[in-house]
Amino acid sequence: MKTFNIQSPDQAILEQLVHKVNNKTKPKGSLGILEDIAIKIGVIQQTLSPKLSKPTIAVFAADHGIAEEGVVNPNPQEVTWQMVYNFLSGGAGINVFTKQHNIALKVIDSGVKYDFKNLLGLIDEKIDLGTKNYLHQPAMTKAQCETCIEKGAAIATSIYSEGSNIIGFGEMGIGNTSSASLLMSKLLGMPIEDCVGMGAGLNSEGVVKKKQVLRAVIEKHSSVSSTEDILQTFGGFEIAMIAGAMLQAAELKMGLLIDGFIITSALLVASKLNPQVIDYCVFAHTSGEPGHQKLLDYFKAKPLLNLGLRLGEGTGAAIAFPLVQSAVNLINELASFDSASVSNKGNE
Amino acid sequence: MKTFNIQSPDQAILEQLVHKVNNKTKPKGSLGILEDIAIKIGVIQQTLSPKLSKPTIAVFAADHGIAEEGVVNPNPQEVTWQMVYNFLSGGAGINVFTKQHNIALKVIDSGVKYDFKNLLGLIDEKIDLGTKNYLHQPAMTKAQCETCIEKGAAIATSIYSEGSNIIGFGEMGIGNTSSASLLMSKLLGMPIEDCVGMGAGLNSEGVVKKKQVLRAVIEKHSSVSSTEDILQTFGGFEIAMIAGAMLQAAELKMGLLIDGFIITSALLVASKLNPQVIDYCVFAHTSGEPGHQKLLDYFKAKPLLNLGLRLGEGTGAAIAFPLVQSAVNLINELASFDSASVSNKGNE
Repeated sequence: MKTFNIQSPDQAILEQLVHKVNNKTKPKGSLGILEDIAIKIGVIQQTLSPKLSKPTIAVFAADHGIAEEGVVNPNPQEVTWQMVYNFLSGGAGINVFTKQHNIALKVIDSGVKYDFKNLLGLIDEKIDLGTKNYLHQPAMTKAQCETCIEKGAAIATSIYSEGSNIIGFGEMGIGNTSSASLLMSKLLGMPIEDCVGMGAGLNSEGVVKKKQVLRAVIEKHSSVSSTEDILQTFGGFEIAMIAGAMLQAAELKMGLLIDGFIITSALLVASKLNPQVIDYCVFAHTSGEPGHQKLLDYFKAKPLLNLGLRLGEGTGAAIAFPLVQSAVNLINELASFDSASVSNKGNE
Repeated sequence: MKTFNIQSPDQAILEQLVHKVNNKTKPKGSLGILEDIAIKIGVIQQTLSPKLSKPTIAVFAADHGIAEEGVVNPNPQEVTWQMVYNFLSGGAGINVFTKQHNIALKVIDSGVKYDFKNLLGLIDEKIDLGTKNYLHQPAMTKAQCETCIEKGAAIATSIYSEGSNIIGFGEMGIGNTSSASLLMSKLLGMPIEDCVGMGAGLNSEGVVKKKQVLRAVIEKHSSVSSTEDILQTFGGFEIAMIAGAMLQAAELKMGLLIDGFIITSALLVASKLNPQVIDYCVFAHTSGEPGHQKLLDYFKAKPLLNLGLRLGEGTGAAIAFPLVQSAVNLINELASFDSASVSNKGNE
């Protein structure tokens, strides 16, 4: 599998960044988490004057063999391709919020069970017409999994080459919370039941059935143990591509804006392959999907937003983006005590 | 004292608003609190297609007699007027964030202890050179308090007449967390010690001294009981003007974006004078000042942000504004299941 050479950012600049933030005309620490984000992006970019250039969200769509069971998802599988059309015609949540914040949007077919016939605006990286049903066999072949990582990396490189230094990720795929739950369960050694939620809207009876099916999946593949094998067995094409894109973006020293449950499960895969990827991450929001909080706890992450969002598509990353921009603006634009002739006695 | 005729919005439109939001191409409820905000603003504006027009933040500045004790505040009193200059030259936090979100900014001298000599851009509504020290006498006279309410109302009317339908409030005043704590203690019947925090940056020893001084203030004025008298005794000129502005804005059916601890204490005063004001409020953020959570609990409010902000100036309202815009955009711009030809089976 493709490997990545991710450098942890040099922390030598940290002290100067903290000094700069502390000399802004405001009580010390009074911009809370925004100060932490400003400093983190300064460290990532190795500058006292960070800038966010061409923010971009890449939405990866794919179908999941498990959806044929009809129990893990409340929506029919054709919603995946229908929503891809919705993305391209500008009517989905991610369209509304990326437009609001002038974020570029890329939509990638990672493996949707539908023939889009060279649909204009869709980036065609289709691996297959959906994964296999992991209730019976691994979701993908080893070669497919490796191709996903490579294709995801190429997408990140392409976005970087367009001048972007901040990237968010989104996903669309009926059944993909099941993949995320399985990856989380296997990679963190947690019971599958603790990793499963309502997804896009199962009722409580539906959640019980989903847990039963995914328990059977875990037992079927109980011997699978390496990160690569876990991704191949339980992954989705979109999740594997996102993991590859994250690793490449971190190698390119881009900031990574981490959305909700499925995106964080892709980050879990990426971080098991190369832990340095974490140094480049800003967590956007805490999803309403219960497994997400546990994933965030694992990463010791305190996301910017907690609004009960559970839409996917990267909408949490898009909605949180202006807060990241506020953080960058505070370090660049607020006056210092000296320049504004304001007494700093209370901050000493 | 001036009274206000605030109409509770007609709830008849609620059902149609909920129906519209539920028919957007997303799992039902998956935009969490943003859906609630979209519906609330639809109800306030009595329309299925709400719009935010000319968002404006009004920052009221004033000084506080208690600051002469030198124990309730870590910063010297001249920081109030120095920060007013900073607002007018564009270097403060509120400047950076209102500029980022294209929010109009008004700066009002409600009673700063400084002669600004017709400073360009400053709205001069000065009542006096700071309030009196309530350790010894009421902060203001009855006439001054009434004038504050009237002047605040006039500011709101002026902003409304410029075409704004959404208004946020900010404050600047060394010592004004003490006023907020006292108002909260008296109006909610809570021990003053439960209402006091670090303000703009007191250490733990400083917080102990602040509690002692404010306990003495409470005891000095133990017989004060009506809302009007409490405001006159413990208020600041800026807090009283903000309360007046809030009441007028609600009468004008504007949306009110509620910032942190001091602004919420002004809302507490306003709501004791006229409870209907609450129907027009969107809570922006939970402040790092500990009393704020208790105030929010009283209002049963779940603010949009919890980032540890405690800067004041209305910065929490400014930073939260794009989320309110996202809520409005979702109800206007997301495609419906029908229009996008996406199956709604999972939402039925």
